Amino acid sequence: MRININADLGEGFGAYDIGDDAALLDIVATANIACGFHGGDPSVMRRTMAAAAARGVSIGAHPGFNDLWGFGRRAIRMQAAEIEHMVAYQIGAALGVAALVGAEVSHVKAHGALNNMACADADYAAAIARAVRAVDRDLIHLTLPNTELERQSLQVGCRTAREAFVDRSYEADGGLTPRSMDGAVLTEPAIAAARAVAMVREGAVTARTGERVALTFDSLCVHGDEPTAVAVAKAAKAALMAAGAQIETLPKMMAGR
Amino acid sequence: MRININADLGEGFGAYDIGDDAALLDIVATANIACGFHGGDPSVMRRTMAAAAARGVSIGAHPGFNDLWGFGRRAIRMQAAEIEHMVAYQIGAALGVAALVGAEVSHVKAHGALNNMACADADYAAAIARAVRAVDRDLIHLTLPNTELERQSLQVGCRTAREAFVDRSYEADGGLTPRSMDGAVLTEPAIAAARAVAMVREGAVTARTGERVALTFDSLCVHGDEPTAVAVAKAAKAALMAAGAQIETLPKMMAGR
Amino acid sequence: MRININADLGEGFGAYDIGDDAALLDIVATANIACGFHGGDPSVMRRTMAAAAARGVSIGAHPGFNDLWGFGRRAIRMQAAEIEHMVAYQIGAALGVAALVGAEVSHVKAHGALNNMACADADYAAAIARAVRAVDRDLIHLTLPNTELERQSLQVGCRTAREAFVDRSYEADGGLTPRSMDGAVLTEPAIAAARAVAMVREGAVTARTGERVALTFDSLCVHGDEPTAVAVAKAAKAALMAAGAQIETLPKMMAGR
Amino acid sequence: MRININADLGEGFGAYDIGDDAALLDIVATANIACGFHGGDPSVMRRTMAAAAARGVSIGAHPGFNDLWGFGRRAIRMQAAEIEHMVAYQIGAALGVAALVGAEVSHVKAHGALNNMACADADYAAAIARAVRAVDRDLIHLTLPNTELERQSLQVGCRTAREAFVDRSYEADGGLTPRSMDGAVLTEPAIAAARAVAMVREGAVTARTGERVALTFDSLCVHGDEPTAVAVAKAAKAALMAAGAQIETLPKMMAGR
Repeated sequence: MRININADLGEGFGAYDIGDDAALLDIVATANIACGFHGGDPSVMRRTMAAAAARGVSIGAHPGFNDLWGFGRRAIRMQAAEIEHMVAYQIGAALGVAALVGAEVSHVKAHGALNNMACADADYAAAIARAVRAVDRDLIHLTLPNTELERQSLQVGCRTAREAFVDRSYEADGGLTPRSMDGAVLTEPAIAAARAVAMVREGAVTARTGERVALTFDSLCVHGDEPTAVAVAKAAKAALMAAGAQIETLPKMMAGR
Repeated sequence: MRININADLGEGFGAYDIGDDAALLDIVATANIACGFHGGDPSVMRRTMAAAAARGVSIGAHPGFNDLWGFGRRAIRMQAAEIEHMVAYQIGAALGVAALVGAEVSHVKAHGALNNMACADADYAAAIARAVRAVDRDLIHLTLPNTELERQSLQVGCRTAREAFVDRSYEADGGLTPRSMDGAVLTEPAIAAARAVAMVREGAVTARTGERVALTFDSLCVHGDEPTAVAVAKAAKAALMAAGAQIETLPKMMAGR
Repeated sequence: MRININADLGEGFGAYDIGDDAALLDIVATANIACGFHGGDPSVMRRTMAAAAARGVSIGAHPGFNDLWGFGRRAIRMQAAEIEHMVAYQIGAALGVAALVGAEVSHVKAHGALNNMACADADYAAAIARAVRAVDRDLIHLTLPNTELERQSLQVGCRTAREAFVDRSYEADGGLTPRSMDGAVLTEPAIAAARAVAMVREGAVTARTGERVALTFDSLCVHGDEPTAVAVAKAAKAALMAAGAQIETLPKMMAGR
Repeated sequence: MRININADLGEGFGAYDIGDDAALLDIVATANIACGFHGGDPSVMRRTMAAAAARGVSIGAHPGFNDLWGFGRRAIRMQAAEIEHMVAYQIGAALGVAALVGAEVSHVKAHGALNNMACADADYAAAIARAVRAVDRDLIHLTLPNTELERQSLQVGCRTAREAFVDRSYEADGGLTPRSMDGAVLTEPAIAAARAVAMVREGAVTARTGERVALTFDSLCVHGDEPTAVAVAKAAKAALMAAGAQIETLPKMMAGR
């Protein structure tokens, strides 16, 4: 039993802090680091990358829309070509800053609204995948399974990884329960922990409506936005380790693929 | 007689155009391409890089202050470490976008106020040089000779190139005549052209006050901001070629150094 | 026969110019001046307002999305309340800058994607209208007729003006022909001019498909983005004046309403 | 004994919070509210203004450099005229947002590096003062005494108020002890509180080097950046009230002047 755990980090900006990076760095094996468009700045990026590298946490670029005000969570209707350029820019920027601390950037995961839109829009998805592949064909592209983002990533020829969520409820079709619904976010550490173990062991999850849904994933995503999120993440990791799961960085998880 | 000619390009942003990129691309052998902070955006960068590469014009990253409003011409008092991170970010971003068009980024030249401040401030200069060297030690760092920027670049161990100006008057100490003085900018194509040939042939320039000043340089910088600038640049290049000078890209000019 | 003519002005930013403000200021009676979010900066605003005031051209705030890169033409999915705050901010900013030159801001017209989205989305439309009314209930709100923007503006109690387009083709339902269709933009000055006179005289326009469509409007909008646009605008104004129409500022046009 | 207490509030941005606005709103009588350039956004501004107005806290515009990354603390070398336009823009924006909640903006206080530079640079100081006066001549301009900012404010004819600091050490010349020196910031609530009472009672402060320095001020500035700052502010207010001082809003403090 092997699994990766990832979280979004380095989303502060200048004088602004956000999220509990310190707590998450002790939990995850892989960090998605904001690239200055929806959060992060060159100094925050460098600091976060250095901290991740010092803990053996693998580093990914986490590109988003150019919308600090909206934290990358607002849908912005750009042309697909512009998205390709914007994502290549941010991946390159992450590589540039990583070079300052001798760290490696091994994957890319799109952020927020950009990720959401690309899950549903094949043109956006292909644009992101092309950018990932063009900048460095060894980069792993971390996607949500059963979406256009995963499909186009494979189509474009990216090394494609999949993630599942420790703290989110699933629907019978394998999609996430919309946040607007009750119970969409799991806040009880013990429940989320048991579920995480079952997900990794069985490659499946029990949907909100009771169905067993098969899920293929290489990584579990955890969050740091709220106190319960960190507690949930900690409990999930502890339960996975107690169940004998080995927590791997994303590149180790994908080695040979 | 061999010389490089460089100019700043790709400084538009979104719907905004600026400078006469088309004219300059037919004159220069090397383009300094804005990286999105003082000008340029990912799509402008890609378009400009593709156009440069198609003409065999070598490409450099042209990082500046994060000040689109001031076009990177306002002095901003940042910490040297922040400048190092900011420059590494922009060089990386340029590399990321260049990958989309299969182009190579072979040099770095700081823009505007960042360049000016680094010429006088050893900490800023060293910060820029460290960023250049960290991102890729093969990158050429294009500097103004007899400044802290040149000195620190050498000290840090960058491959260091020097530039001189076709359309600017020099003082007896080898510095540029301040723009606030009459005659600081040469606008007469024939005069500038003759001077450019003399500069390249003799490795020296006649100062505003008549002295002969030795100048070591690998590249001549031309501008595209004003109609006379393009005419001056064209005339200078034609005169150099008529005098038998070979116009080289910056990497060719620096090959083996 | 009385009519207002309006155009978008002051959309430059820092070192960037865009549009032919000088030409338009000699044509229009009313200027919609960008407020720094999609274009414009405090200095461009001040300069444009001073130029407008000097010619007796009435001034409006022209708020847009916070998207300089996309020039306010990209749909951004914000909450309606955020739009209300953002529009009030920009109107206030315009009032603040106008105070420097002793000019009056007499109307508001939303820009680009914000205007388009509000024409179709009642919540966005009401948000804009509430902002206009809150900042100064004497402000005229310039809208596109037969849209949610017009309806909500009236509902909220704004002084509501309507505009029609000199250089756009109309559909039988009174909507504009989509730009993606052939003939959507009129580029022939003589044709546009004859049409403008007919529109003002008859309060109606001939649709692309030949139907006569009644149109209620207080202002004709002209553009400055392309050479043909200025020629079209000039021809339309000349024809209107030759036909005896009086060109009024928007506040004069709406006086008493 | 009457005194005003002011603090900077509403400096968050989008998803980012900063400072302890809730704690400060229970201490101060006057809030300097960021205007979107160094911090704050239209929604943060509205929320903060509503909260201030609900507590009877008077509201001021707190304009800063257009530098969210540097939180307005970096010196940016702009032209004085640009500063005048930029400050008028921000004051206007504050008035626009205040109109949404029916609140009054009664003063202006420049932020961070803009304030610091204007204290030493007469052109910058006059530019700020002209903007304040142009937007609304009833606005109070809150300045640091014995600086160019105070002098030019008076010269331009602004209603000029002065502030002193509860948590900062003073030099013998009436200037603040530079932050780089030990003891520049007072962190001990009891000491700061006793000092605040003495300052208000005597119109004087004991300098770091022991001298008694006369100080004319209408307002005491407190901070919310660090835990000790809030404790210091609370203690100072409690001590002032215990000593019989009446805490007034800035407009009440300046009534008739």
